[in-house]
Amino acid sequence: MTYTDLAQGIESITPANGLKEKLELAKKENRPLIIKFGMDPTAPDLHLGHAVGLKKIRQFLDAGHEIHLIVGNFTALVGDPSGRNSTRPPLTPEEVQRNAETYVSQLSKIFDTSKIHIHYNNDWLGQMSFADVLKLLSKATLSQMMQREDFRNRYENNVPVALHELIYPLIQGYDSVAIKSDIEFGGRDQLLNCLFGKSLQESLGMDGQIVLTMPLLCGMDGHIKMSKSKGNYIGLTEHPNDMYGKTMSIPDFLIPEWVELTTDWTPAEKADAVADFKNGTTNPMEIKKKIAFNIVKQYHSEADAIAAEAFFYKQVQQKGFDTKEFKEVLWADVAPTGSIGLVDLGAKLLEQSKSNIRRLIEGGAVSINGEKTGDINLTLSNDGSEIQLKLGKRGFFTLK
Amino acid sequence: MTYTDLAQGIESITPANGLKEKLELAKKENRPLIIKFGMDPTAPDLHLGHAVGLKKIRQFLDAGHEIHLIVGNFTALVGDPSGRNSTRPPLTPEEVQRNAETYVSQLSKIFDTSKIHIHYNNDWLGQMSFADVLKLLSKATLSQMMQREDFRNRYENNVPVALHELIYPLIQGYDSVAIKSDIEFGGRDQLLNCLFGKSLQESLGMDGQIVLTMPLLCGMDGHIKMSKSKGNYIGLTEHPNDMYGKTMSIPDFLIPEWVELTTDWTPAEKADAVADFKNGTTNPMEIKKKIAFNIVKQYHSEADAIAAEAFFYKQVQQKGFDTKEFKEVLWADVAPTGSIGLVDLGAKLLEQSKSNIRRLIEGGAVSINGEKTGDINLTLSNDGSEIQLKLGKRGFFTLK
Repeated sequence: MTYTDLAQGIESITPANGLKEKLELAKKENRPLIIKFGMDPTAPDLHLGHAVGLKKIRQFLDAGHEIHLIVGNFTALVGDPSGRNSTRPPLTPEEVQRNAETYVSQLSKIFDTSKIHIHYNNDWLGQMSFADVLKLLSKATLSQMMQREDFRNRYENNVPVALHELIYPLIQGYDSVAIKSDIEFGGRDQLLNCLFGKSLQESLGMDGQIVLTMPLLCGMDGHIKMSKSKGNYIGLTEHPNDMYGKTMSIPDFLIPEWVELTTDWTPAEKADAVADFKNGTTNPMEIKKKIAFNIVKQYHSEADAIAAEAFFYKQVQQKGFDTKEFKEVLWADVAPTGSIGLVDLGAKLLEQSKSNIRRLIEGGAVSINGEKTGDINLTLSNDGSEIQLKLGKRGFFTLK
Repeated sequence: MTYTDLAQGIESITPANGLKEKLELAKKENRPLIIKFGMDPTAPDLHLGHAVGLKKIRQFLDAGHEIHLIVGNFTALVGDPSGRNSTRPPLTPEEVQRNAETYVSQLSKIFDTSKIHIHYNNDWLGQMSFADVLKLLSKATLSQMMQREDFRNRYENNVPVALHELIYPLIQGYDSVAIKSDIEFGGRDQLLNCLFGKSLQESLGMDGQIVLTMPLLCGMDGHIKMSKSKGNYIGLTEHPNDMYGKTMSIPDFLIPEWVELTTDWTPAEKADAVADFKNGTTNPMEIKKKIAFNIVKQYHSEADAIAAEAFFYKQVQQKGFDTKEFKEVLWADVAPTGSIGLVDLGAKLLEQSKSNIRRLIEGGAVSINGEKTGDINLTLSNDGSEIQLKLGKRGFFTLK
């Protein structure tokens, strides 16, 4: 595999000539490069956004390099010791183990996980004494940490930055020392953290790693990067029908980005698809169907992709969003008193959490009798007439 | 002992009503208070400046409270891990032990050291894991640390603050947690550090310590606080003649401060001496002689004080600083080549370190043939004529 193949699609290489040099070094020393990527065991779910980097990592694996996954169980076992962040309680060792297994089984959708090296960073960080920690801390200055915009903003706006948070980047950096990584893959927002790894290695006389970041994939909402917490994601293990349907729901302007980042087409095929979209020679709906088909094929199989396409055709496209597709719901079943909050009703009908329903409403994805509503405090009452309710892309109900 | 006796002479009590409350608590719970004070094992030499606080601590000991000395060996064993500060190499356990013994033997000049509790903070800090450290760090925020002016100034002026330095106040604070101190004695410049101890204790559900600071004693130069590094100090174990002579060298305007902080006179005796000085009813020299006598009596004995006074009278006062007092030195003995650097020469003549001699020269305390020199690079050569050399207050030599 050539340098050009490996560098293709990488958003940033720091330092810029680093990848070339590392590849030459590997050749000269006749050894594989050590590629590091990290996993947060409190968030084991992988989606198409993660897959952008993982597919690039697969290329390095295919080219004969070593892939090292760091399970960040050290901080997961500690949790947030300040107790301020209630969403970060400590995990038990069993939970960490379970989450790591979940994660690796999702990774197997992308590459042969028997070929990668898996490390748990508590193995080295958990052994460190206070004196070792002081030595680690002496390698970084306050100004370096404050290069991180979030720390700087919080400090300047008098939002507390606890000291354990301040040193987290060093912890992640020390992982690079422990495994002697040549290359670290990180999200764009992780670049500074990854560069700490580089400078820590160098302060200890090692060759510093280089850092590769991949572009961020925008979620189906078309606004922000794909993220589980924003609900705008497609998980790698989702059902083919959901993968297909969610892909069909992206706004047209995302087509070029999704062609580039989610399909496994060749560069030429990608260029053709984007050109077709931009020239208007192909209906955007047709290009999205191809993308959706390709995604299902990658993470499930071609047969699943065919079935998902057929399901979508039958369910949504052929019959349209007309009233025949609306499911009938009786007031007596959902609200015997004849009155119910829209959020509660949505949660019952879709069997989802209330916060999801609130997000749907606030995102403009809920309409009543054809009119959108953004009011999460709305209460519906039975006045004897039918109410047509649309909840998101695929929740259509007639309330009688 | 009453509250008024104990509070007398204390510079600051934080919080202001804290000492009253702690004394009432001790009475109510029928227990002694736990008084903490710390020792830096890299700097075991005690001088009259330290004695100001130690004499106050003796009052608490006499009143039945517990005195706990913390030997800060944890950081001394680590040194400055950044390697930037070459004056702070790690000490060996043997060096720490030796310095602690030196320190305690000097303390015995002030109180019965068999009655105090001695702790080595490596006993608890050395046991802490990285996870324990994270918990400790979570109890403080960056803004709290930046209340320290030195950190703030360095950060704002782009002078590096290494992260291990940033957390040192927490380390000292944790000592208060470990011994459950009620009161910590610190220098004025240690107040913020001591208050971390208080807030750490409180964040762990304990009763927070109060912090007492004592006034800083000005050194013999009359400019800055007494400090070994400035050479303006009287060590607790110095020879009676040196103690006496150095005290006689203080500028007159220091008399009230030295009466207050160095003598063991009663408040009434102190007030009289200060009034005599201010009214001009007593010659300042006579008051200084009383102070010098009292100091030697405290740290040696009355007989030593009488002898030191006699020595001073004979050596300095009666005969004056005339040439008869200059000691003759032969070129052949100190510089057979006929040429020698002023620093090297001074070090030989006074049997002191070269850095002490450099300090003397830079401090304007060295003159050649009656003319001051500030040149630490000066070389003297034998041109056949006599050279009269004054090195500090009591080093008078004629080089032939």
